[in-house]
Amino acid sequence: MTRTRIMQAINAEQERTICVKGWVRSARRGKEVSFIALNDGSCFDSLQLVLSPELENYNEISKVGTGACLSVVGKLIESPAAGQKWELQVEEAKILGDADDSYPLQKKRHSFEFLRSIAHLRPRSNSFGAVFRMRSQLSYAVHKFYQERGFMYVQTPIITANDCEGAGEMFRVSTLDADNPPKQNGAVDWNEDFFGERTGLTVSGQLQAELFATAFSDVYTFGPTFRAENSNTSRHAAEFWMIEPEIAFADLADNCQLGEDFLRYMVTYALDNCQEDLNFFNQRIEKGLIDKLEALAKAEFKTITYSEAVELLLKAKQTFEFAVEWGCDLQSEHERYLTEQVFNGPVFVTDYPKNIKAFYMRLNDDNKTVAAMDLLVPRVGEIIGGSQREERLDVLQARMDECGVPQEHLQWYLDIRRWGSCPHAGFGLGFERLLMYVTGMENIRDVIPFPRTPGHAKF
Amino acid sequence: MTRTRIMQAINAEQERTICVKGWVRSARRGKEVSFIALNDGSCFDSLQLVLSPELENYNEISKVGTGACLSVVGKLIESPAAGQKWELQVEEAKILGDADDSYPLQKKRHSFEFLRSIAHLRPRSNSFGAVFRMRSQLSYAVHKFYQERGFMYVQTPIITANDCEGAGEMFRVSTLDADNPPKQNGAVDWNEDFFGERTGLTVSGQLQAELFATAFSDVYTFGPTFRAENSNTSRHAAEFWMIEPEIAFADLADNCQLGEDFLRYMVTYALDNCQEDLNFFNQRIEKGLIDKLEALAKAEFKTITYSEAVELLLKAKQTFEFAVEWGCDLQSEHERYLTEQVFNGPVFVTDYPKNIKAFYMRLNDDNKTVAAMDLLVPRVGEIIGGSQREERLDVLQARMDECGVPQEHLQWYLDIRRWGSCPHAGFGLGFERLLMYVTGMENIRDVIPFPRTPGHAKF
Repeated sequence: MTRTRIMQAINAEQERTICVKGWVRSARRGKEVSFIALNDGSCFDSLQLVLSPELENYNEISKVGTGACLSVVGKLIESPAAGQKWELQVEEAKILGDADDSYPLQKKRHSFEFLRSIAHLRPRSNSFGAVFRMRSQLSYAVHKFYQERGFMYVQTPIITANDCEGAGEMFRVSTLDADNPPKQNGAVDWNEDFFGERTGLTVSGQLQAELFATAFSDVYTFGPTFRAENSNTSRHAAEFWMIEPEIAFADLADNCQLGEDFLRYMVTYALDNCQEDLNFFNQRIEKGLIDKLEALAKAEFKTITYSEAVELLLKAKQTFEFAVEWGCDLQSEHERYLTEQVFNGPVFVTDYPKNIKAFYMRLNDDNKTVAAMDLLVPRVGEIIGGSQREERLDVLQARMDECGVPQEHLQWYLDIRRWGSCPHAGFGLGFERLLMYVTGMENIRDVIPFPRTPGHAKF
Repeated sequence: MTRTRIMQAINAEQERTICVKGWVRSARRGKEVSFIALNDGSCFDSLQLVLSPELENYNEISKVGTGACLSVVGKLIESPAAGQKWELQVEEAKILGDADDSYPLQKKRHSFEFLRSIAHLRPRSNSFGAVFRMRSQLSYAVHKFYQERGFMYVQTPIITANDCEGAGEMFRVSTLDADNPPKQNGAVDWNEDFFGERTGLTVSGQLQAELFATAFSDVYTFGPTFRAENSNTSRHAAEFWMIEPEIAFADLADNCQLGEDFLRYMVTYALDNCQEDLNFFNQRIEKGLIDKLEALAKAEFKTITYSEAVELLLKAKQTFEFAVEWGCDLQSEHERYLTEQVFNGPVFVTDYPKNIKAFYMRLNDDNKTVAAMDLLVPRVGEIIGGSQREERLDVLQARMDECGVPQEHLQWYLDIRRWGSCPHAGFGLGFERLLMYVTGMENIRDVIPFPRTPGHAKF
């Protein structure tokens, strides 16, 4: 008999005989009858199995442990119990894989910290079931958003010889014998390495996405990126996924509009497609989550310049840990003050001082600021960072010299400005930041299947 | 005026005034009138611009070089020329970025080898425009296929401490000072490294996908994988994308059925959604490509055991470079003989000798073979490889010992069999192999945006 997913069983329209398979979330043994909550991950809710002593192997099945895997045939009937429409009157049951008392996920609340230590089993818990279902749904939403708008997906390289992306520390990738590497003048001779030069893990697909944008007009990346930063915070992981759209013939305003449309789409998609999981997060993880998301979906996105932002911060009644003056980078406390206290909603901050931004951002006519933009949202702060790119060859070359980026390493990047240059812009959105925002989960380790952080590469 | 994509212009239903932007593919200057083919990557075809000397800056625009970037406003009218429905009578034109004679992509046929050396510009050529549009479309099709069937997408880790996946040589990932690493007893002390142990780049997401399948039932991965093999062939790259579905409650037959459904879906999707690009490949890259794809979309997928395959090969009139006997691995020549000469269509080969397959494949009752399956297709050979996984804890432990895989490194993998084990199966499909099959491109370097191979990590 073909297996029916529990999601389908729970949404059934009429009584019928079905076969379900899944894992025991909890079992309650009675004299007259026993109950088992069976979950197969297809949805948040478990299906209630009702076992009567007439069942051939009642003794065995009713004693089954939490975590055991069952295959069950029975009749789906309307449930007299509150909170569920259907239950399954079991006619046949088989234990596919038993679980004894040592199963670490017994029915009780576990701390997220403990669950991280059993990341191979935590997907079987309510919280992480919901997190990873939403991760999958929202991944698909990313592709839907861009593909339906005619954007081309480009898979930019993971291994890169570029060390000048400027976005952070890189992991080195090598096949040399680490104990006895070939050396020249006392230093490792990278010419002997697999790629004939020193390589690392990408920190961003932007530069390559720019190349594709100047051939296909509208492109996006969605792939893993890396930071070898030894920071143990709840917001940083060594490996995370990033979405980077890049659009030709676009300026900063177009870029902000795309960011607004994208974020609104993602939040609306979650509200429309992940209700059951969102209800759980709303009740157990972040009170008011759904209100927050609904507000964002309808919100007006404001735009202010960096200079205006600095003025607002200088006028603030609040005292900040980090003092503010024109030219400084905005800290998380500043960003949250702007989006939470001043605007109580999403706000783009644009036109940052060139000295605190990357070489590729387009220089404004004031020669002091660049056409950068960050999108700030309440509770998170920066969720999107981007810019119009410098499309003028001579200006870009001057900026590279100013920033100490060697031109000879990036001739291919300059070529795009040498022949058929065009205005273009783009941004990056950290997928995990978005997931934290949408689920209310507060630690990045809890929205990544198997997180990589300093000291942790297990599983 | 809002930009219209050239794809929309070419498929217009009525005359109208539009703005298009793109890159000059070719220009033909006449006395009375000049023509420019403008392409923006949104589709294969270029839009013909018609420039009359009445245009204010006619002299400048009509002399524009191949590769220049233009912004143009004009009237879309029916074209008298053959092979195109519309042309654009230009009313305003502006050069966004010029291109001089040194532009490497002049209008003539370039070798794929030359184009690889300018991988940053080749997306602007006909062939690579078509390749990367199809790569994007088929990436989306992968997600559509699995998501519409209720599979969950899981992003498995790229950096891994597992060195026992057995699928090939691994790249090492490190942040230690390569010139002066910390040492213990003369060897590098990996405990001092970023993750506190020796790590590398994943060769497969399978083991982690299995963990998720035993919580969500039906899952798939789609992400980059790596092989540090120093092989310079047209079929191998150091970095490539793989799709790995993993299904709980499934046996080898279910696995074959999924592989068949998936491949048929992908080929049908290409035929239905990428006609223009496929026409190009059919004419210029592989004669008969479309017939081949249509045949596969309708084909009956056969299944034979490895033992039957060996018998067929022993009976073959053909002589092989590599001799065949029961127990040997099948070579590409054997695979192609079976799929091309014997079956002239797709064929699954199942139940391989355990000694040539990985430790995690389910042992058959004969104790000699495992429940493995490879799908062979004409012209390519193996396109899918998978197996039912060993779900019996004691059998798996014995196989690990036999294969020299240390159990202590994979306790988490064993735990899945310890508590709530279930039959499950899955396979891997190399995305680039599929792209080569569907486009007819013969070198894996030509279906990857920026390929990584020995000695090459440029761009």
